[in-house]
Amino acid sequence: MAKRVTGPEIEKLIQLLARVPGLGPRSARRAALHMIKKKDQLLGPLAGAMSEAFDNVRECQTCGNIDTSSPCAICSDPRREQATLIVVEDVADLWALERAEVMNVRYHVLGGTLSPLDGIGPDDLSIAALVDRVEKENIAELVIAVNATVEGQTTAHYITDQLAGMDVKITRLAHGVPVGGELDYLDEGTLTAAMRSRTSL
Amino acid sequence: MAKRVTGPEIEKLIQLLARVPGLGPRSARRAALHMIKKKDQLLGPLAGAMSEAFDNVRECQTCGNIDTSSPCAICSDPRREQATLIVVEDVADLWALERAEVMNVRYHVLGGTLSPLDGIGPDDLSIAALVDRVEKENIAELVIAVNATVEGQTTAHYITDQLAGMDVKITRLAHGVPVGGELDYLDEGTLTAAMRSRTSL
Repeated sequence: MAKRVTGPEIEKLIQLLARVPGLGPRSARRAALHMIKKKDQLLGPLAGAMSEAFDNVRECQTCGNIDTSSPCAICSDPRREQATLIVVEDVADLWALERAEVMNVRYHVLGGTLSPLDGIGPDDLSIAALVDRVEKENIAELVIAVNATVEGQTTAHYITDQLAGMDVKITRLAHGVPVGGELDYLDEGTLTAAMRSRTSL
Repeated sequence: MAKRVTGPEIEKLIQLLARVPGLGPRSARRAALHMIKKKDQLLGPLAGAMSEAFDNVRECQTCGNIDTSSPCAICSDPRREQATLIVVEDVADLWALERAEVMNVRYHVLGGTLSPLDGIGPDDLSIAALVDRVEKENIAELVIAVNATVEGQTTAHYITDQLAGMDVKITRLAHGVPVGGELDYLDEGTLTAAMRSRTSL
């Protein structure tokens, strides 16, 4: 006997919420209940914000960022230095760099990393579009800010190969000790890299 | 300079998501991004499910359950044994008992527990309505299934006092070792209670 605990509307809401990263089946149930209790403060506004995002949000055709316009606010910002591009794996990385206000330049979102085991090849990422941009937009420096994983580094090397012969300086983020990090907790690779790139005080 | 990383629609969505239990500011950002990427499979349906829940879900005026009708499906189910009521703190507890198919009876949701420190008194809970139901619905047994916390037990005692003199049997859930639980991880109170209520094999 499959008992009907609540209405199908609520069950459907719980099932969809369970697919949100960070929530599982159990916490989705708790989240749904909390939302329903805070109907006017949370459930209503959230439903509105989601349908607004659904209607208005799109992918920037230039860089791959997610925004309400294409080209996105970053790509169409004339105050940004135009000759440098930061290459990131994912929109989340772009947002992280923007939050940190690292550099006032534009970006290029790859949409992932090369991963032969998962069947992700160069054609699944926006690498051809990147090569195109470097050429047409007269990019002088390309900062490859992919994750420091094997896949990320493989992707960085592949991009470097694709740009061979073009007049563009290719750089990557420095390896080192994270600010506030404790040496004791760092892996040997990071410590070796940090030591090798040591700077004078 | 507060940089505009994404459109205000997305920022608003992230801010609202951060108020969902189980999500924090960081995971809300990740969740929003994931939803936007899975626009048609997740963001759209979720927006729809939420606005449907917003429009249709209400509190059952009889028991306090959350459903699309009032009285709720449980209260209006004639196949449930009518002479027993299970008293729970919260709708989540009601759902948990229903999922476990513990007993085919009806419920009464208190809406919390007595907590003088938080300023929650008897008038903030649906205790008067419970006393009323016990009388008018000829309840023979009241299972007080509140949490085994100090507040829960205080509330259970208060309810018992309120029902003094009425012809109703008041019971509570048994204390003991959770099924699958390891003795090593249990507190002394539970072990003592489990030993005291030991049963013959």
